[in-house]
Amino acid sequence: MQNFKVDNMPRPLILISNDDGYRAGGLQILIESARPYGDLLVVAPAEGQSGMSHAITVKVPIRVEKYAEEAGLTMYVCSGTPCDCVKFALNKFVDRHPDLLLTGVNHGSNSSASVLYSGTMAAAIEGCMYGIDAIGFSLLDHSPNADFSPYKVYIQTIIEKVLKNGLRNGTCLNVNIPKIHTDDIRGIRICRQGRGYWIEEFQHRIDPTNREYYWLTGDFLNQEPDAQDTDEWALKHNFISVVPVQIDMTCYKSINGLKKLLE
Amino acid sequence: MQNFKVDNMPRPLILISNDDGYRAGGLQILIESARPYGDLLVVAPAEGQSGMSHAITVKVPIRVEKYAEEAGLTMYVCSGTPCDCVKFALNKFVDRHPDLLLTGVNHGSNSSASVLYSGTMAAAIEGCMYGIDAIGFSLLDHSPNADFSPYKVYIQTIIEKVLKNGLRNGTCLNVNIPKIHTDDIRGIRICRQGRGYWIEEFQHRIDPTNREYYWLTGDFLNQEPDAQDTDEWALKHNFISVVPVQIDMTCYKSINGLKKLLE
Repeated sequence: MQNFKVDNMPRPLILISNDDGYRAGGLQILIESARPYGDLLVVAPAEGQSGMSHAITVKVPIRVEKYAEEAGLTMYVCSGTPCDCVKFALNKFVDRHPDLLLTGVNHGSNSSASVLYSGTMAAAIEGCMYGIDAIGFSLLDHSPNADFSPYKVYIQTIIEKVLKNGLRNGTCLNVNIPKIHTDDIRGIRICRQGRGYWIEEFQHRIDPTNREYYWLTGDFLNQEPDAQDTDEWALKHNFISVVPVQIDMTCYKSINGLKKLLE
Repeated sequence: MQNFKVDNMPRPLILISNDDGYRAGGLQILIESARPYGDLLVVAPAEGQSGMSHAITVKVPIRVEKYAEEAGLTMYVCSGTPCDCVKFALNKFVDRHPDLLLTGVNHGSNSSASVLYSGTMAAAIEGCMYGIDAIGFSLLDHSPNADFSPYKVYIQTIIEKVLKNGLRNGTCLNVNIPKIHTDDIRGIRICRQGRGYWIEEFQHRIDPTNREYYWLTGDFLNQEPDAQDTDEWALKHNFISVVPVQIDMTCYKSINGLKKLLE
């Protein structure tokens, strides 16, 4: 005999953050996409925080201001990093365990090794550390004016299924969407993180006081372009890539060899 | 028939960086420890970069200045993050593939989940992405005046063995040293990353203009204090912990379940 009443349950609490800042178009579409599924608490950075990875703010104080409050949506703007935003949300603004954490939609790819640099994915991983099912979304379009709306249906499909089924503990999702017409999207593909790295260049310039300075720039090198189980391959072949990302970075395969070498 | 002549080989090229900045005592001991094993190229941040994780500098330009040059040691100071330092070293200052990258010695622990926030470990992981054997060292003592010298013998043992035997591709080492008398150190122990997280608090204060601000602070919660194969357990029981850390964050165990759910 079940006394469980859905009507008496609170709506799911969905936490949202990003790394492009509270004004980003990608954040707006994520809010819009998530709205039907629960009460939203948004804590987003005041400014763009791309490439901030899992950085936390320890040298300067953090400022937080309420930005919006309406039925089903409360939104704050935070001076810190994406990771600070999630910590702040969890520590100051929630009275119950959030049911889901969504981050993004990032303006630009976070596939392959970019997961390590990404503020969007760091925010998702941060929530995951606290036992919250988390999904980071990215669109392969760096433009501040990128049009995210056609992809809403896919974002909602993923939100809905994860909300219903949950994720493995200690694991979150890294979702990347190719910048193509939705008619050309071949579907969602579960992948592993492809091997690759950035071939960097440091552009050398001279400032007005005659001092040297550099800008970091570079191109991504895919080390395994033919591996069909990678996110890079999926994206190149018009799939939405989904990589399950885990907090545990231990290389278990190395343990026995190292025991012989170092213990 | 071997024509291989060790005498004609260049000395190993060892890259060094840290996240506490070029003046940190931990960096000095790492330089001192590594000196017998090769030619050193040090690129260290101008200021402390604790908690910067894998952040890269994209919003402001990077400045780099030569700080020292003597036989076997060249040292630069860089305005960027630990990750920028490694990128800069690899792209501007080396004419051959470095044989080893050492980071630290960090003032404070980088065990368990701290690997995700650590600038020291991010710098090691960055080198690892470029195929360089890399080791991040940390001492469980946050003090700027921490005495690292007693632990030099352990640091050198690890450097020597890794230089000779190499590491698995895509894997680097996270070495943490307990702050105890060396007589009490029970040895080196290969571990997995323990599960845990920070219970954060945000200290609330009011500035002179009557505006609110917050400082991030908190305590670490070990979620599995009795698990003898974790780094946290090893450190608590007077071992030096060594965790092999991999770049690939894919949770392979989640892949089949997610295929059924989302594809």
